[in-house]
Amino acid sequence: MKRKRAPSSGADPRALARGNRLRRELTGSQYVKGADTGLDPALLPAREMLTEFVWGKIWTRKGVDRRTRSFMNIGILMALNRPHELSVNLRMAVNNGLSRGEIGEAILHSAAYCGVPAGVNAIAVARQFFAELDSEQAKDQPGGRSK
Amino acid sequence: MKRKRAPSSGADPRALARGNRLRRELTGSQYVKGADTGLDPALLPAREMLTEFVWGKIWTRKGVDRRTRSFMNIGILMALNRPHELSVNLRMAVNNGLSRGEIGEAILHSAAYCGVPAGVNAIAVARQFFAELDSEQAKDQPGGRSK
Amino acid sequence: MKRKRAPSSGADPRALARGNRLRRELTGSQYVKGADTGLDPALLPAREMLTEFVWGKIWTRKGVDRRTRSFMNIGILMALNRPHELSVNLRMAVNNGLSRGEIGEAILHSAAYCGVPAGVNAIAVARQFFAELDSEQAKDQPGGRSK
Amino acid sequence: MKRKRAPSSGADPRALARGNRLRRELTGSQYVKGADTGLDPALLPAREMLTEFVWGKIWTRKGVDRRTRSFMNIGILMALNRPHELSVNLRMAVNNGLSRGEIGEAILHSAAYCGVPAGVNAIAVARQFFAELDSEQAKDQPGGRSK
Amino acid sequence: MKRKRAPSSGADPRALARGNRLRRELTGSQYVKGADTGLDPALLPAREMLTEFVWGKIWTRKGVDRRTRSFMNIGILMALNRPHELSVNLRMAVNNGLSRGEIGEAILHSAAYCGVPAGVNAIAVARQFFAELDSEQAKDQPGGRSK
Amino acid sequence: MKRKRAPSSGADPRALARGNRLRRELTGSQYVKGADTGLDPALLPAREMLTEFVWGKIWTRKGVDRRTRSFMNIGILMALNRPHELSVNLRMAVNNGLSRGEIGEAILHSAAYCGVPAGVNAIAVARQFFAELDSEQAKDQPGGRSK
Repeated sequence: MKRKRAPSSGADPRALARGNRLRRELTGSQYVKGADTGLDPALLPAREMLTEFVWGKIWTRKGVDRRTRSFMNIGILMALNRPHELSVNLRMAVNNGLSRGEIGEAILHSAAYCGVPAGVNAIAVARQFFAELDSEQAKDQPGGRSK
Repeated sequence: MKRKRAPSSGADPRALARGNRLRRELTGSQYVKGADTGLDPALLPAREMLTEFVWGKIWTRKGVDRRTRSFMNIGILMALNRPHELSVNLRMAVNNGLSRGEIGEAILHSAAYCGVPAGVNAIAVARQFFAELDSEQAKDQPGGRSK
Repeated sequence: MKRKRAPSSGADPRALARGNRLRRELTGSQYVKGADTGLDPALLPAREMLTEFVWGKIWTRKGVDRRTRSFMNIGILMALNRPHELSVNLRMAVNNGLSRGEIGEAILHSAAYCGVPAGVNAIAVARQFFAELDSEQAKDQPGGRSK
Repeated sequence: MKRKRAPSSGADPRALARGNRLRRELTGSQYVKGADTGLDPALLPAREMLTEFVWGKIWTRKGVDRRTRSFMNIGILMALNRPHELSVNLRMAVNNGLSRGEIGEAILHSAAYCGVPAGVNAIAVARQFFAELDSEQAKDQPGGRSK
Repeated sequence: MKRKRAPSSGADPRALARGNRLRRELTGSQYVKGADTGLDPALLPAREMLTEFVWGKIWTRKGVDRRTRSFMNIGILMALNRPHELSVNLRMAVNNGLSRGEIGEAILHSAAYCGVPAGVNAIAVARQFFAELDSEQAKDQPGGRSK
Repeated sequence: MKRKRAPSSGADPRALARGNRLRRELTGSQYVKGADTGLDPALLPAREMLTEFVWGKIWTRKGVDRRTRSFMNIGILMALNRPHELSVNLRMAVNNGLSRGEIGEAILHSAAYCGVPAGVNAIAVARQFFAELDSEQAKDQPGGRSK
């Protein structure tokens, strides 16, 4: 989504840039690259407007800290039945300082409200994400691994 | 739900008692009375098993504090489209120390994920709850009201 | 929805008639009257097509008995978050032979899958429906009431 | 929500103003007044950010005309199970030029995808809205009524 | 689903045939073949009854044109969280004359109502579908490609 | 989840053991092994609490037989849009005595309430599960296969 001119979508360029910075910081630049590279121009307005809104205007607000927003998103995405987005948000949660134990606890709390299938699915999503994290950390620290 | 003997539902009596205490503390004894009085016996097992589970076993866990659980529930109940339960949880949120500003912020954050209709509905629910709260506080403090 | 000619909606007249008979039998003619009387003609095709489909073509099928269909609908309507339709289906469930205890058990089972707010809401819906039923039975049997 | 200064919420003042104008035009100033008057200040940021987004930035876009957006919203709000918002959107649909027949047809189409309970609920919502509309039109045109 | 006799499911043979023709025309015969070939006989009644209903009885109705129905379905399927069906419907949308720009716009509009995760997912679904379309068109027109 | 000591999660050891036995019996020990082996300890409390609740406390209750619970779960999981859990439950349904024809009928009934996309998805899930079952039965009975 590199671009020389103001976005054609009607998004505010500064809010969009601020949003994309935070999006890259929290979800990882690899994720952002995978989602945006070679995107059909017909989908650019949707991408930009949503990035401006949720990243540039909501996540950057004061009043609720990022740790709490990450806790909320675990519950929200379980309730909305969005496993892929949940997985991305677990990485964000770790980047915002949640421990694995806190993530497990947030999943259990949310499962009581969203039902057992939502809980079982979130356990599977977290399980796979923790395995990826272990594998990345093993690569980064060739002499051993730590959580 | 006063009862002399062990619950017939299969709920653990201690977990159920612990759950009902917390439920009464956070939702208010008026709400509990309204929900439980004169309940058809056919519905008692469901009431007891759910109270044991969510109140006696989930909310009483360590690892995530009650403030954070209240933030999560605002998002979860907006996502689940349960306005009545959201209203009860706003009272719990105030009892767990959330300010009105924090509630407004949690609603805005969740609306980005759950969509505008969920946000508009939550604003209406919070608006009515805040008005009830104002009215209760005006009664309690005849010389004035405070938030 | 009394009508002398074939329905203008494209519904098969026999399936529609068969459906309306069963609908009246299971939900009660009072409910049907309330839902259909004075319906704007613009809404007739939707009413007829849906009645033909769910009542005339699905509920009249063999292979799963009506009792089982009523159990299923309690779970489905809790999952779909449709309290009004749930209430109508509780009356149908009683007409299909479910006891109050079975209804309570079906609500508890479904609550584990749909989450505690769905369960709490269904308890409230069933509570009110059982009270209406008590009141109707008290009227019908002036010398006493029975369940 | 009349206000002399820039919104404190971080909303762009021009997009917000543009959004509020369209919101008033399509939902009716009575609805807007009812939703906004006396709103607790804690809820203003959510109100303003959502109004800016959906009204100031989405509905004012070119590329899909308003009639088509109204058709879409009937389906979306039935799928999201938001009867109150559906009712507001039926008024918007009429203001955007949809006939009652087209609304009935859109409800039937959406019911096939969202299920019969969603369809039955939408019929009830539309039925009540059409009755309100009839009553308003009877008041406006004392010599008779027209659709 | 080739068959010499009347369907055993209770579906009207003419409505079913009409529905299957339209289904094949809009989703592509490859999709239909993949979905129906070798289907266990136990699932035939469900396949036939649903095909008769949504294809033979709803999509073939007058009153709302196919282009508008395709716009509606993008919103409905995003709201219902059905990415696979959304993908099939994007192909139908192209066959009904929607441009890629209109699809992008419909996704953005719907995302405001269904929430950012629904929007992000729909962008990913559309992105992949557009890539498939590009690849198909490149095969069809060896001397170049056109949209 | 083999373990020598009482569960650290707060689950009742007997209910948990009873639950795990039934879970293994109905879903198959292969599924349980796949879901539990090597689970990050941070996710153990969620796994244990949910297993205790739904398997140890709900499925083991009297009042509704297992066949009926399996019928209910087909409808509930279609309504909740959880295809993976639906697939696991189809195996449970077969273990609880449902025929393929009854499963097909339950899917059709539920589709009327949950909408056509839910029905089409469930047909695809059942189709794949039946194929797996055929393949397993062909292995078990080298001289032929039976349903």
